[in-house]
Amino acid sequence: MSNLIHDITGMARRAKKAARSLVTLSTEAKNNVLLHMATAIDEKREFIQAENKKDLTAGKEKGLSPAMLDRLELSDRVIESMMNGLHEVAMLPDPVGEVEKMVRRPNGLMVGRMRVPLGVIGMIYESRPNVTVDAAALCLKAGNAILLRGGSEAIHSNRALASVLQDALQSQGVTADAIQVIPVTDREAVNIMLNQEEYLDLIIPRGGEGLIRFVAETSRIPVLKHYKGVCHIYVDRDADLAKATPIIINSKAQRPGVCNALEGVLVHKEIAEEYLPTLTAELKLNNVRLLGCHESVRIVADITPAMDSDWGTEFLDLILCVKVVDDIEEAFAYIDQYGSQHTESIITENYSNAQRFLNEVDASAVMVNASTRFNDGGQLGLGTEIGISTTKLHAYGPMGLEELTTKKFIVYGQGQVRS
Amino acid sequence: MSNLIHDITGMARRAKKAARSLVTLSTEAKNNVLLHMATAIDEKREFIQAENKKDLTAGKEKGLSPAMLDRLELSDRVIESMMNGLHEVAMLPDPVGEVEKMVRRPNGLMVGRMRVPLGVIGMIYESRPNVTVDAAALCLKAGNAILLRGGSEAIHSNRALASVLQDALQSQGVTADAIQVIPVTDREAVNIMLNQEEYLDLIIPRGGEGLIRFVAETSRIPVLKHYKGVCHIYVDRDADLAKATPIIINSKAQRPGVCNALEGVLVHKEIAEEYLPTLTAELKLNNVRLLGCHESVRIVADITPAMDSDWGTEFLDLILCVKVVDDIEEAFAYIDQYGSQHTESIITENYSNAQRFLNEVDASAVMVNASTRFNDGGQLGLGTEIGISTTKLHAYGPMGLEELTTKKFIVYGQGQVRS
Repeated sequence: MSNLIHDITGMARRAKKAARSLVTLSTEAKNNVLLHMATAIDEKREFIQAENKKDLTAGKEKGLSPAMLDRLELSDRVIESMMNGLHEVAMLPDPVGEVEKMVRRPNGLMVGRMRVPLGVIGMIYESRPNVTVDAAALCLKAGNAILLRGGSEAIHSNRALASVLQDALQSQGVTADAIQVIPVTDREAVNIMLNQEEYLDLIIPRGGEGLIRFVAETSRIPVLKHYKGVCHIYVDRDADLAKATPIIINSKAQRPGVCNALEGVLVHKEIAEEYLPTLTAELKLNNVRLLGCHESVRIVADITPAMDSDWGTEFLDLILCVKVVDDIEEAFAYIDQYGSQHTESIITENYSNAQRFLNEVDASAVMVNASTRFNDGGQLGLGTEIGISTTKLHAYGPMGLEELTTKKFIVYGQGQVRS
Repeated sequence: MSNLIHDITGMARRAKKAARSLVTLSTEAKNNVLLHMATAIDEKREFIQAENKKDLTAGKEKGLSPAMLDRLELSDRVIESMMNGLHEVAMLPDPVGEVEKMVRRPNGLMVGRMRVPLGVIGMIYESRPNVTVDAAALCLKAGNAILLRGGSEAIHSNRALASVLQDALQSQGVTADAIQVIPVTDREAVNIMLNQEEYLDLIIPRGGEGLIRFVAETSRIPVLKHYKGVCHIYVDRDADLAKATPIIINSKAQRPGVCNALEGVLVHKEIAEEYLPTLTAELKLNNVRLLGCHESVRIVADITPAMDSDWGTEFLDLILCVKVVDDIEEAFAYIDQYGSQHTESIITENYSNAQRFLNEVDASAVMVNASTRFNDGGQLGLGTEIGISTTKLHAYGPMGLEELTTKKFIVYGQGQVRS
């Protein structure tokens, strides 16, 4: 067995042992640890930023883009935001121990379902070192141990943050093995991690589509993920166009580089002549470039004809596809073909079309008269999130604390046997 | 592309298309189909039993054991039981469309979670042809299409049942693609099925540990499964022994060949001298052979010393391991090491130990003063089950209709944008 396999297997084994002890940790104890972590990050700010500087310097030498360096930097603002995040997670209700659907069966057995932690979560992510703290906080609050493997660009930052978090755990009498960062960043470490089926219960990858596909194809452990967010808005014939435009602008332009940003607008043919010129003009004011179908180009000469490969593309940029559709059925078919089961929204004042859209569209969040940007754990009321799942097993949509737990059956008997 | 890949991919693609249409099928329509299937099975009884006869004849020629031939036979009793099963599933509440946790967010958005079908379920199973009907009924009621791949021993029976079910679907205006049996039984068909990630949402394997391990290791699609059931009962120092004995006898001897049957008893050292002789005598009356630790053998000479490999074995037979333990902590450690996260029960009148057992033991069902045989969907109140999961993602324990669905977020807006 190579040293690397030996080391990572040892970490995974210790994580599982730690998870066993977290099951019985009280909510109060977990909250104390979280608040203590926030204080520790504040106190160790200089150390953390000095280590972060090493990553930033190396990143500049490697020629990382300004956007990537920005994501890498643990500025005072980012540190405050990590501290706030820890406070917020401490304030969220603890899902562990909640008992649902307790009923008395005909034979007198009391049967219920108790929320329990999943066990050990493996997190694989790229450059943002604040994920280390955010993910560790959520996993700890849900009673899970976490094994983190960040990108090589952030290795000094991640190790520094882990050591601060581990000190905080130990100062509160909790094992440091509850939060561990794998100190090796080559791909082989990921391979070994994805084979720890005996010790890890769930893998959550966050990053580009390439990383996520690699993880999904390699892992022997269940993976919760989304590859990409190709989100659409369908502007129905009965849309209130005064609502449509601000929603489309917000969905596309407020933050174009994220997964719940808009990539395509479908417009009902009977309002296209009236609406497309207005929409195009408004989008232009927001520097959004439009790629469209033949019909849309006929109506607005400013729209660039789309290529086949544009439909269903996640641009993550100020580019938007526009297509004129015959009816809601064609919108459904388009979303089925090009959507990524992430977020789909309809703009309509028509009651039946609103209900049909909510019932029939298959996506982790389906909306009426609202911006796609609302598909986010904080916005939808989960408090915060560890990621968004577009696969349907276990969780569909943003994953908060509850999605980091499972339910076991508990049975109170008085001597019953089965007949 | 080989013909087999072409054929199975085509079936999977059609199943996905069928699933799309099942989403909007009313509960009434689904129930009508289920009741119609029961009638059709009754009417086509002769055809079904004639086809089943071909499998039985081939099975005898192949030298299948009497137990296997028994499982294969579609006797009148089994046919009645399939028909009753269809009626029962028709009577269960439909989980699809239920909206949970609808709240008004501070910005006025109404956010809830709607239960929706998973999509397409792939079922891989061995000899029992009645699984074809039971699984198809549950999947249909939950709005899912199903692709079934049964064992070669039952191929004529499965094809006959599928044709009867498909006729019933079509007579009610539902596409026959909602229930499809793969007509090829070699291993390659399973491999191809497990690669249909684009069309299948979930795989449920049922059968021996070998089949299940193969499926889990090969599948690119999420798998819900249990490898085996190694269930224990811990008889605490404060147990009511008058409850303990019938519970142990029931757990072990009522049906020893199933996954929720008992495989090990742990007895507190302070009651072992008193209790083990009684227990051994009672078990002997039920033809159960005991394998035990040194201490248990010292107390009761009738107990055969256990070998290391006996601990944690799923005997599926009238054999039971017995171990004397120092305290509840040692019981926890033993269950952690040898249990299979299936079913664990404590016999005690001690309030604190009962609560600790329920809270701390990691198994899909944990019980106090009750037989392990109760870990079953019907017994725990799910109505019926499609299998039991001992992995924690998505479902932990028996899986009924609700576990064949997922929840998507639905959002009712009035023009909100994100600030």
